[in-house]
Amino acid sequence: MTEPITIAMDLGGTKIKLGLVQGGNILAQAQMDAYSDQGLRGRLPYIKQAIDELLDVERINVVDIAGLGISIPGIVDSRKKKVLSIDKKYGDAPGIDFTSWARASWGLPLILENDARAALVGEWQYGNGQGMENVVLMTLGTGVGTSAVIEGKVLRGSHYQAGILGGHFTVNVFGGRCNCGNMGCVEVESSSWSLEEKVKAQPLYAESKLKGEPKIDFAALFHWAEQKDPLALQMRDECLDVWAACAINLIHAYDPEVLLVGGGIMGSGAYILPYLQEKIHQLAWTPWGKVEVRAASSFDSAALLGAGYLVLHQN
Amino acid sequence: MTEPITIAMDLGGTKIKLGLVQGGNILAQAQMDAYSDQGLRGRLPYIKQAIDELLDVERINVVDIAGLGISIPGIVDSRKKKVLSIDKKYGDAPGIDFTSWARASWGLPLILENDARAALVGEWQYGNGQGMENVVLMTLGTGVGTSAVIEGKVLRGSHYQAGILGGHFTVNVFGGRCNCGNMGCVEVESSSWSLEEKVKAQPLYAESKLKGEPKIDFAALFHWAEQKDPLALQMRDECLDVWAACAINLIHAYDPEVLLVGGGIMGSGAYILPYLQEKIHQLAWTPWGKVEVRAASSFDSAALLGAGYLVLHQN
Repeated sequence: MTEPITIAMDLGGTKIKLGLVQGGNILAQAQMDAYSDQGLRGRLPYIKQAIDELLDVERINVVDIAGLGISIPGIVDSRKKKVLSIDKKYGDAPGIDFTSWARASWGLPLILENDARAALVGEWQYGNGQGMENVVLMTLGTGVGTSAVIEGKVLRGSHYQAGILGGHFTVNVFGGRCNCGNMGCVEVESSSWSLEEKVKAQPLYAESKLKGEPKIDFAALFHWAEQKDPLALQMRDECLDVWAACAINLIHAYDPEVLLVGGGIMGSGAYILPYLQEKIHQLAWTPWGKVEVRAASSFDSAALLGAGYLVLHQN
Repeated sequence: MTEPITIAMDLGGTKIKLGLVQGGNILAQAQMDAYSDQGLRGRLPYIKQAIDELLDVERINVVDIAGLGISIPGIVDSRKKKVLSIDKKYGDAPGIDFTSWARASWGLPLILENDARAALVGEWQYGNGQGMENVVLMTLGTGVGTSAVIEGKVLRGSHYQAGILGGHFTVNVFGGRCNCGNMGCVEVESSSWSLEEKVKAQPLYAESKLKGEPKIDFAALFHWAEQKDPLALQMRDECLDVWAACAINLIHAYDPEVLLVGGGIMGSGAYILPYLQEKIHQLAWTPWGKVEVRAASSFDSAALLGAGYLVLHQN
């Protein structure tokens, strides 16, 4: 039996990805800049246009589409299909009536889900989490996203925030204030949005090679650490230890067999995974055995595939 | 309908509590020193004797008992009724066949559960967690125990460690090594077992009133903080901030409406609860509303009641 086709949207902080999805396949896709700091409402007509173009090019009639699946950052009420709270990006999203927009645009039903949950569903159904009953995803990007499947069920919690706030667990009780309002979160201690400010506050910054960089991101940090720049080395190791603490907290919280790690940062550090694996094997308390650390298989498409899956299966 | 009677045992680090339990009532109880650093096997005959005495005094025949419920620290396989791993106390517990002991002693079936889970079940069914679908317990004692009920179900996870390791979430990535092997856990940063060593390592210790104390525990710490001893003030606030971070991490992890706080330490600090409540309201990311912080209702009996409940309801 062929699975029905769905329209999937992954509203990332920097890019919006759109796809026509059928099971584990993306039949066609498009991408546009997100300008997420300017809100989402103004992008909706461009998103509609891009999807209509995909349908045209693929010669797919909208009556053959099962529904629309949207993946978005923030805390999402997946029953009411509302964004409850979102941290900086797409600040106007809580006021948007996605159901009406999907109905008015294509006459289609809709699912709305947090992006890390959608990505985990994609990995779990079609990627490197296949066949697992207990799997946690940690994505290292602009922020740090997390989600959990426990005993074969996506963890949501009564207010839809269980599993997705691993980036906002306090890992440094004496640390700085996060965008979310909490202190010493994983994100404020180690993520793309907080890195530059942290690096510039270090005494070693004045004599670091990082000072010559137009943009201090993890690519620059990993590059200069390899060149033995003292500040870059120190900050890289601190960031890796923060991610390891995040991973261990997720393991202690959700009891998975597999930890999937994805996100934009994975491209710039070939030894992130082995480092995390080693720390987890040293430090996590898992008497049943060792949690396996794996790269997410297809981070670019996982949220699209997951959003498509959720249109058809209200797991 | 009257509930059947069960035998309940709460194997604490310092005291072993025994009870005959019927629903939310403890018909009779007894208590003995645990000597948990000497293991559990040698205590089993004394436990049997004490239970037999309770049955005698209450004139209850063992044929009228529905089963035996045991609450014990550590990671517990509640299906196989085995202790998988235990941190210091009762080091021999993983080798004990509780099922055979219960059968040989009284011919009774058995349930075995982690102590924080048993206590939460007691609170949830009979105490201050009644009627809640989403509730987390944090107990501040020798260690820091936690457990969670999510959407009306006790969280266990596939390897029985989900929910109960909140005391071993890293809250200080630059902190010291915990008994469990991990770094900067809540327990090593703030619990009864770690307090004395932490206090003695402080530069202010030489001139602190705490130096005159025979035993540096939280009672002493709270007492001298009230007297404005500088070290006691500093350490009290640090410990409270660690527990607040623990509470916030539990809220971010499990999405409860109510956080119950119990444990031996609650006796010595009337402002622990208001402090936690204020920090949580300031710092936790819960757009749906405010998590309510409540004292556990009957911490002395919650684990007994929960163990009794679990004999009758394999939740």
